[in-house]
Amino acid sequence: MKVKVKVPATSANLGPGFDVAGLALTLYNTFTFELNEGGLNITGCPTQFCNEENLTYRAFSQAAQSCGLDFKGVNIHCESQVPYTRGLGSSSTCIVAGIVGAFAFKDKTDARQEILELATKIEGHPDNVAPAIFGGLTVSVMEEEQVLTLNIPVKHEYRFVALIPPFTLSTEESRKVLPQTLDRQDAIKNVSHLALVVASLINGYDDGLKLGFKDRLHQPYRGKLIHNYDEIMKVLEADENVLGCYLSGAGPTLMAVIREEDKMGVVRLKEELGSLLNDWEVIKLELDHKGYTCDYE
Amino acid sequence: MKVKVKVPATSANLGPGFDVAGLALTLYNTFTFELNEGGLNITGCPTQFCNEENLTYRAFSQAAQSCGLDFKGVNIHCESQVPYTRGLGSSSTCIVAGIVGAFAFKDKTDARQEILELATKIEGHPDNVAPAIFGGLTVSVMEEEQVLTLNIPVKHEYRFVALIPPFTLSTEESRKVLPQTLDRQDAIKNVSHLALVVASLINGYDDGLKLGFKDRLHQPYRGKLIHNYDEIMKVLEADENVLGCYLSGAGPTLMAVIREEDKMGVVRLKEELGSLLNDWEVIKLELDHKGYTCDYE
Repeated sequence: MKVKVKVPATSANLGPGFDVAGLALTLYNTFTFELNEGGLNITGCPTQFCNEENLTYRAFSQAAQSCGLDFKGVNIHCESQVPYTRGLGSSSTCIVAGIVGAFAFKDKTDARQEILELATKIEGHPDNVAPAIFGGLTVSVMEEEQVLTLNIPVKHEYRFVALIPPFTLSTEESRKVLPQTLDRQDAIKNVSHLALVVASLINGYDDGLKLGFKDRLHQPYRGKLIHNYDEIMKVLEADENVLGCYLSGAGPTLMAVIREEDKMGVVRLKEELGSLLNDWEVIKLELDHKGYTCDYE
Repeated sequence: MKVKVKVPATSANLGPGFDVAGLALTLYNTFTFELNEGGLNITGCPTQFCNEENLTYRAFSQAAQSCGLDFKGVNIHCESQVPYTRGLGSSSTCIVAGIVGAFAFKDKTDARQEILELATKIEGHPDNVAPAIFGGLTVSVMEEEQVLTLNIPVKHEYRFVALIPPFTLSTEESRKVLPQTLDRQDAIKNVSHLALVVASLINGYDDGLKLGFKDRLHQPYRGKLIHNYDEIMKVLEADENVLGCYLSGAGPTLMAVIREEDKMGVVRLKEELGSLLNDWEVIKLELDHKGYTCDYE
């Protein structure tokens, strides 16, 4: 028996919702798990990850321990659509898949809250794992060991255009540049802007997103690490059909939100951005409303 | 012809939503305006407020100038239910009424966005005037001179129990104790908690409110200015039927949220709090969904 787990890419922070907000997208990593009589076999990913340090395997092992799954060895096969270290939650897909994979052998694939808490413990913060688990747009709050995640009902059909650079930016590096303290007024700005983003999405008030996505907690600092960041954001903000744009997760991917009916959005953005994009990849995604799925084969 | 303006009390901040969130309550101040041939006559309020410094009159004058109302004099009569300087938005009722009163003589009582911007300019921040104008639960964002206010649809029927002390606390005094900078983690807490409050109210997830109302931006500092604050909050938090509690506006009123069906809530809270309340007033209110109303007589 094989267990197949499909986990969506995620885009965290949404501007002001640092470590809090995230959404699941229709781009997936799929992982297949099969127990064996001894040893670890990882296939479908670069050889440097095919060892016991593999994040999916580490999550699988921790989850196995947590749910009382006794295993001698496991085969893990990966099929990846989500680019690695680009701010689209690829690590979260590995962590969530590893946990769900182990839980599946104990028939516990629907224990989403337990999976959330274990995944947050491994990842350190819930903003990517939460939407990967529950789907949709989520906000999460950590209180000691507990994680509380709620979905925000999104009124309109949006499309998320991911502008993915060819270079990587590690979350660790991207956290180092953040200030330890901030001005009270900046904190109030972030609080008010996340409230605006959330209220705009609920009410279908698209005009609130451009202002709402502006934040003073991480984007101004992380943007400096990304080649052409200011220039690209300026072009996106000047486009009347771009409802808003933000740095996805810890970056370096930038996300532009457009309406479903803006069919030429990607073509237009590519033209407007021209050589600024150079060899960046541009893909249009939708909200994933399910979170991970799991099947037996 | 007389113009009668009725404005609801408001409760701002809701814990983490400092200067951002507010809600309108079913407790009202009513103001009647009548133009005369010269002079200012204010009745229905303490004599120390019956002069040109009167906030309602100042707002009326500014609004008259803004909408081109030429007047020689005005009679203003006040009927107050909202206690003064207690964190229930009494100043906002005066400001909003003054503006609506002047606008009414130019048949502009529905210009809510214009009224919001003028009221925010006079008040300095939109968190009380916004719900007084639009009703319900609002979040507001200021961007230079512009104010953007959105309503949050609240799923359940809640009741708001206001615990109103006999002593006052001026907003100015209450702002002085706030720190100018804060730790990044505290800012993230506030961002996440406001998102939790908002998402909980939308989804009718009552269990999110107790944690959501906790903030690190103003309540820990302002609470120290209020006699018995810690003790009262502790009792409220221990009551399983209190969904959450927070400092209303700049205080000193404390607000406990209960369910509509908790008919004995006020009686129980009075018992539980006993002598801690001493001569505090305890009143149960509902959400006002309309904001100000205006009639001609």
